[in-house]
Amino acid sequence: MRERAKATVEALQDAICAALEETDGSGRFVEDLWQRPAGGGGRTRVLEGGDLFEKAAVNTSAVWGDLPEALGGALGGAGVPFYATGISLILHPHSPHIPTTHANFRYIERGGAAWFGGGADLTPYVLYEQDASHFHNVLAAACDRHDATFYPRFKRWCDEYFFLPHRGEARGVGGLFFDDLGRDDGHDLEALYPWWRALGEAWLPAYLPIVQRHRWTRWDAALKRWQLQRRGRYVEFNLLHDRGTLFGLKTGGRLESIFASMPPLVRWDYDVRPEPDSPADALLQVLRNPRDWRTV
Amino acid sequence: MRERAKATVEALQDAICAALEETDGSGRFVEDLWQRPAGGGGRTRVLEGGDLFEKAAVNTSAVWGDLPEALGGALGGAGVPFYATGISLILHPHSPHIPTTHANFRYIERGGAAWFGGGADLTPYVLYEQDASHFHNVLAAACDRHDATFYPRFKRWCDEYFFLPHRGEARGVGGLFFDDLGRDDGHDLEALYPWWRALGEAWLPAYLPIVQRHRWTRWDAALKRWQLQRRGRYVEFNLLHDRGTLFGLKTGGRLESIFASMPPLVRWDYDVRPEPDSPADALLQVLRNPRDWRTV
Repeated sequence: MRERAKATVEALQDAICAALEETDGSGRFVEDLWQRPAGGGGRTRVLEGGDLFEKAAVNTSAVWGDLPEALGGALGGAGVPFYATGISLILHPHSPHIPTTHANFRYIERGGAAWFGGGADLTPYVLYEQDASHFHNVLAAACDRHDATFYPRFKRWCDEYFFLPHRGEARGVGGLFFDDLGRDDGHDLEALYPWWRALGEAWLPAYLPIVQRHRWTRWDAALKRWQLQRRGRYVEFNLLHDRGTLFGLKTGGRLESIFASMPPLVRWDYDVRPEPDSPADALLQVLRNPRDWRTV
Repeated sequence: MRERAKATVEALQDAICAALEETDGSGRFVEDLWQRPAGGGGRTRVLEGGDLFEKAAVNTSAVWGDLPEALGGALGGAGVPFYATGISLILHPHSPHIPTTHANFRYIERGGAAWFGGGADLTPYVLYEQDASHFHNVLAAACDRHDATFYPRFKRWCDEYFFLPHRGEARGVGGLFFDDLGRDDGHDLEALYPWWRALGEAWLPAYLPIVQRHRWTRWDAALKRWQLQRRGRYVEFNLLHDRGTLFGLKTGGRLESIFASMPPLVRWDYDVRPEPDSPADALLQVLRNPRDWRTV
């Protein structure tokens, strides 16, 4: 499974980077290969200043060894052998009409246990219900082909995970989040693998049509400012709550790969309050009250 | 002491806001008065889009009551009566030649204990040794008049506190940081009060001459970009490490007053590495190896 999972995330990285470069037009990913002294390494790929994407990071890694002290304490046992491989991507488009998106698919082994984790979610700056519905429906279809309980469970998990308690807001319109799948839960890893792979492959058709739909839509300075302010929420989530980011920082992960996910340009203005019934207000209402996007 | 401390921070706020408006030229502070239902309230004053200051927040508050459950757990005892008053300010100038600065002076009572805390520090984007030296010397002089051990102790405390372990960098060129002063340490609150007040009053002469020195110095887009990238470190420190910010968020402090300190505009670019021996590199060397600024 290690080999298959690693090959899957690397093939996904190649396919996604190629599709994003083609969609962008001028932007090209720059690759940094890195080695982890204690075992494994990664391929960090970052595109900056493209036609469509202000910044995009599509990273894979495969690391292994014995759990270091810093991780062992938190996770139960330094010295336990582990293996982890995954792909992590975050795209920050120039256009406030095109949502920011994040996806992650990972396979983990620790001691005798092994499991899949991952998810994908959408963070719009302007609420287009059609986009949220499309994104959710494509991911739901990829789940339903395997297990009809997956989508509703992982959709709810996503709403709960990508939530900023101090703002009382979800980060975006959600998607999927799952972890520990196949770990003492009756799910067979061999049966999960094709689903996990298909879900990763569903990400491009879930996101790219949204990019195409809005790529020629113009925006003004006020809408750009709103996008930069909302990107502040993204930073707040990543630095205050995101387990992957905090875990990476605490355990000496490759800093530039972790921070490659940060938005390129961000604003914090004092006490921003959208006008009632404005498009910004409509977005906030949904962020405060997550919806079922399959029925839209 | 409650009354004197509250009057001191409010007088300081008035004097600082007036001096900053005069220095800025066009910028004006907008005041938000807020009440805390369980006791007390505050005066949040924010200036945005001035001639010199891109964003400046100079806030005071005085709050009291019984420690709520959320704080009681962490600090030892829900229901214990407390009183807290203080001033907190952060200035973000447009010019990368003028350093960002932060200061805080507070008086706290809890149960039978009472103490002073506070400090002031400087975060430059271009290293002007003269600025760092001036800032430290003015604060040191205000300390030395009371107790010659204060400046060296609080300077070191500042270097230790305003440190980003994941970056291996100090946030800036430091200043002072102190807490729990007068709390079971043999210091008499009555004797500390004039020093604490004088230190607060030393902040303007410590900072304003630095603003005047660089107010007509021009900058190019590359230097502005470097400033925005370095502001990212400020955000990282505030959201990952700053006790005041995290404490405020966890205990339901007034959100907009807490986030008023955030930089107005920030960048995260991938793998930024200043050229060796460039001005940016010279700054980084100092951030990685804090210096004694009294001897410069």
